[in-house]
Amino acid sequence: MYRTHNNGELRIQNLDLKVKLCGWVQKSRDLGGMTFIDLRDRFGITQLAFNENFNKELCEKARKVNREWIIEVEGKVKERSSKNSKLKTGEIEIEVSSLKVLNEAKTPPFTIEDETDGGEELRMKYRFLDLRRGPLQNNIILRSKMSMETRNFLDKNNFLEIETPYLIKSTPEGARDFVVPSRMNKQQFYALPQSPQTFKQLLMVSGFDRYYQIVKCFRDEDLRADRQPEFTQIDCEMAFVNQQDVINTFEGLIKYLFRKILNIEFENSFPLITYDDAIEKYGSDKPDIRFDMSLNYIDDLAKGKGFNVFDQAEAIVGINIPNAAEYSRKKLDELTDWVRRPQIGAKGLVYVKYNKDQSFKSSLDKFYDADTLKKWAEKCNSNPGDLILILSGDKAIVQKQMNELRLLMGERLELRDPRVFKPIWVVDFPLLEKDEETNSYHAMHHPFTSPKSEDLKMLNSDPSKVRANAYDLSINGVEVGGGSIRIHDRNIQEKMFEILGFSKEEAENQFGFLMKAFEYGAPPHGGIAFGFDRLCTLFGCKENIREFIAFPKNNQGRDVMIEAPSKIDKSQLDELGISLPKIED
Amino acid sequence: MYRTHNNGELRIQNLDLKVKLCGWVQKSRDLGGMTFIDLRDRFGITQLAFNENFNKELCEKARKVNREWIIEVEGKVKERSSKNSKLKTGEIEIEVSSLKVLNEAKTPPFTIEDETDGGEELRMKYRFLDLRRGPLQNNIILRSKMSMETRNFLDKNNFLEIETPYLIKSTPEGARDFVVPSRMNKQQFYALPQSPQTFKQLLMVSGFDRYYQIVKCFRDEDLRADRQPEFTQIDCEMAFVNQQDVINTFEGLIKYLFRKILNIEFENSFPLITYDDAIEKYGSDKPDIRFDMSLNYIDDLAKGKGFNVFDQAEAIVGINIPNAAEYSRKKLDELTDWVRRPQIGAKGLVYVKYNKDQSFKSSLDKFYDADTLKKWAEKCNSNPGDLILILSGDKAIVQKQMNELRLLMGERLELRDPRVFKPIWVVDFPLLEKDEETNSYHAMHHPFTSPKSEDLKMLNSDPSKVRANAYDLSINGVEVGGGSIRIHDRNIQEKMFEILGFSKEEAENQFGFLMKAFEYGAPPHGGIAFGFDRLCTLFGCKENIREFIAFPKNNQGRDVMIEAPSKIDKSQLDELGISLPKIED
Repeated sequence: MYRTHNNGELRIQNLDLKVKLCGWVQKSRDLGGMTFIDLRDRFGITQLAFNENFNKELCEKARKVNREWIIEVEGKVKERSSKNSKLKTGEIEIEVSSLKVLNEAKTPPFTIEDETDGGEELRMKYRFLDLRRGPLQNNIILRSKMSMETRNFLDKNNFLEIETPYLIKSTPEGARDFVVPSRMNKQQFYALPQSPQTFKQLLMVSGFDRYYQIVKCFRDEDLRADRQPEFTQIDCEMAFVNQQDVINTFEGLIKYLFRKILNIEFENSFPLITYDDAIEKYGSDKPDIRFDMSLNYIDDLAKGKGFNVFDQAEAIVGINIPNAAEYSRKKLDELTDWVRRPQIGAKGLVYVKYNKDQSFKSSLDKFYDADTLKKWAEKCNSNPGDLILILSGDKAIVQKQMNELRLLMGERLELRDPRVFKPIWVVDFPLLEKDEETNSYHAMHHPFTSPKSEDLKMLNSDPSKVRANAYDLSINGVEVGGGSIRIHDRNIQEKMFEILGFSKEEAENQFGFLMKAFEYGAPPHGGIAFGFDRLCTLFGCKENIREFIAFPKNNQGRDVMIEAPSKIDKSQLDELGISLPKIED
Repeated sequence: MYRTHNNGELRIQNLDLKVKLCGWVQKSRDLGGMTFIDLRDRFGITQLAFNENFNKELCEKARKVNREWIIEVEGKVKERSSKNSKLKTGEIEIEVSSLKVLNEAKTPPFTIEDETDGGEELRMKYRFLDLRRGPLQNNIILRSKMSMETRNFLDKNNFLEIETPYLIKSTPEGARDFVVPSRMNKQQFYALPQSPQTFKQLLMVSGFDRYYQIVKCFRDEDLRADRQPEFTQIDCEMAFVNQQDVINTFEGLIKYLFRKILNIEFENSFPLITYDDAIEKYGSDKPDIRFDMSLNYIDDLAKGKGFNVFDQAEAIVGINIPNAAEYSRKKLDELTDWVRRPQIGAKGLVYVKYNKDQSFKSSLDKFYDADTLKKWAEKCNSNPGDLILILSGDKAIVQKQMNELRLLMGERLELRDPRVFKPIWVVDFPLLEKDEETNSYHAMHHPFTSPKSEDLKMLNSDPSKVRANAYDLSINGVEVGGGSIRIHDRNIQEKMFEILGFSKEEAENQFGFLMKAFEYGAPPHGGIAFGFDRLCTLFGCKENIREFIAFPKNNQGRDVMIEAPSKIDKSQLDELGISLPKIED
């Protein structure tokens, strides 16, 4: 046995106990006659004491030990003369009687401290060392707790964990499938699942009633900071449920996680908003409601006063920035530049200062008098001392831009504290999105989402007006989960594929098994999936999901530590029956 | 809300309660004035009663409902006149006041009963229906329980669940990797993991101390009945442990699972046997110890008596079959044919009947007298009334053949009850296997397994004698788990790769990251992996792992329900930069 205790558990109560400990040398201090070593593992730090007068040879051995070496010691628990209240073990130290070096260590390429001096590239290459740092250890431990508590809740609520296959069928319309050539079935390919969607629906048809899985999914798309080619979902499905049942159940899960992980209690139901209202009020279907600053439409108060830009705009939208009337010209110019950046794409920014003395100052003073501006201010719930920022143009575009500006201002006014959590359900999503270029429809969620029964009649006449039984949960402006009630009727499913541009043959070829399943007694069912990487990141009060994944890929989809992906042997390619034609750069 | 209760929970205590139920129609019976429907879900069956006198229209509606239809009913809980003690709900029925058909169902292509009339091929195609059958439902539910209890145990024992990547690097020597072409890194490939081995070792280097994951692994090899291209492992690793620590911890897990899942208590430690002893005693490194019938070496008692076959044999091995002295000639001939089949490959079978009257009758009566046979019988622990079966030849081959014969005889004597569980640890495996053809060495477990320190000195001189710190757990002749203490020293790891025929460059290219990790403070560590599909199958007292996987592949690695793998579009191939040359059949 290498150890009797870990480095986080010894206390003053253990005085004079003979113990054996192992761990990493965090640091050592040489104080003349005494040498101290901080011994570390993931449970904590224990101080080791070596007294030159007591055992000179041992003390000299201890002095040769360097940072990150692995040692094993035996000794007795003693009370410390100078206690350290920051450590759980801070009242004791180990009077060491023997020391064994289990493994030496080179000097790490960056410091193993909470704040390190290593750049991201270097730390990714030495991920196994970066993961030793306190913040990353805590993130990975948090994730492990999140997953266990999720399972505890779902298990208690009669959900069965059922594994669905990873080697499935590629569906052309899905695009961005990772494919896997089969050696046994040469020149045929599996695909890795983008989600277990169809399988979990089949499990409902099979009668498993409640299913869940914490499962890897895969998408071969260009990566952004918060995307990974492989990502983890809490994937769930329930039979005999309507939208409210699913919402109740998973609001329960999220509340449970907040209670268990962060000790935060949500007494009331999470607020719920329709998609249309969310867009109208926040310009976003995942609104950050930690702060108000909602969108105000001042079209009728601003048009017809000779300002051409507003007169021609479909929408004129203002948001109120509290206590910002004293913003300098420079600050306002900088904001104007910000909204003009191509990522936002506004033509300009109009401001109205509602000064503390109740006077107004705006960039459009020559078009609008104080009385008019006062009406704007009323509409925007603006008080003396506030600043109104206004964008105009095509309504949908302005809403998007305003969402970005709102989030920026929330950030600048420090209204987006990552330790404050504001969940909101967004419901009644449109079933379809129209691609104006190709004049075709895409499913907003996926092709299996059920239309609202009261909107079914518009499926032929006015598809874009049809609402879906679909819902998202957003927390602090992050979409953490989304789901829907599914179609469980073959005819409606066929109709959906038709609207989405599938030929009968394509639909049958790709999803025939699911439509067939609907013919043999399919219950009404629905579900949800949570982005687990994001949920952990949110609970950890951070933004970069990579810090919550033990071995993430970089922005090029590469694991720079193991150097994957990489070339493979010609013999391997031959066995698979594939070849690599010369490609031009 | 579709229902107030499920179909397994109503009891006599709920009398007169108004309830709403949903489910599948298991069957309906029309008894003149009354119609009864058995309503099914995974929780149970509840009887619905419709009285023609009470509500004629409703009763007629109920009569039109067919098997596997989905219905929703409202009604009151009433006491049944004829109770059914086999059902949990057998004391009550629902006096139905309203009935709604939620979905109709075609007649299934096979009966949804515990014993079905559908062939395997058909049931695989309609897996979603097959999964409705009681035995399969129970298997999948058992699996879900096994996984939750495994997590409960490991969580309580300070193991962290940490996800390792699925898109990793292909290693040529591993062979049988599934590879995944990358679109972003054209003509480069990821591989799907055959196990998370190197990652879990890195997690130990990172200081996570105890890791686990219930994780899919992948191997593209020719399939047997108990193999799947994707399979699930309980994968674990611990730092600062020796072999006994790992064995203690995971014996704890297995005992816990037996207690929680099957209510079986193991009071004593599992027996432990060395690899050499297991081979000597049972001819197998995964012995089935539910019955004795061990191997006895009678070389010194059988040689030099003029029977040429024995005289030239390296080993002469007998097993004792209790109470089988009265086997007929026909039965013995059939056994002889059995051992002569190419799968076994013995040249012949010698028998000695130790008759009840203490006389002997053997197939070699002209070479051996009763006194000699008596000595054989003593060596084989044979009693009057028993039968001794003897094989001879090359020792290693005879041991293998004897293992097969022993298992067969155990089966025939009904000594292998699947509801009796006999675990055994097998330890001290050889580190290396010599391939006599190529005169090269393979790792018996994998290249990261640590040699026993006392055998290290033979690593150069006599590699095949070196024993590993490796251990397997077998239950009832099934290897359910295996693991080892790993190498944590760069020099020994390099040496291993050298012995396994890696050039320095190859070793560095493929496993440089791991060897580098060993230089920065790697703790001693070891672990184990359990085959979860097999473990569930064993706990379910069955043999075919496919019955414990929701959506398994067939023997050709195909999912015949979704038709995967399949051809993919040329455009998709082009995007990946790969092409499919014409291949000859």
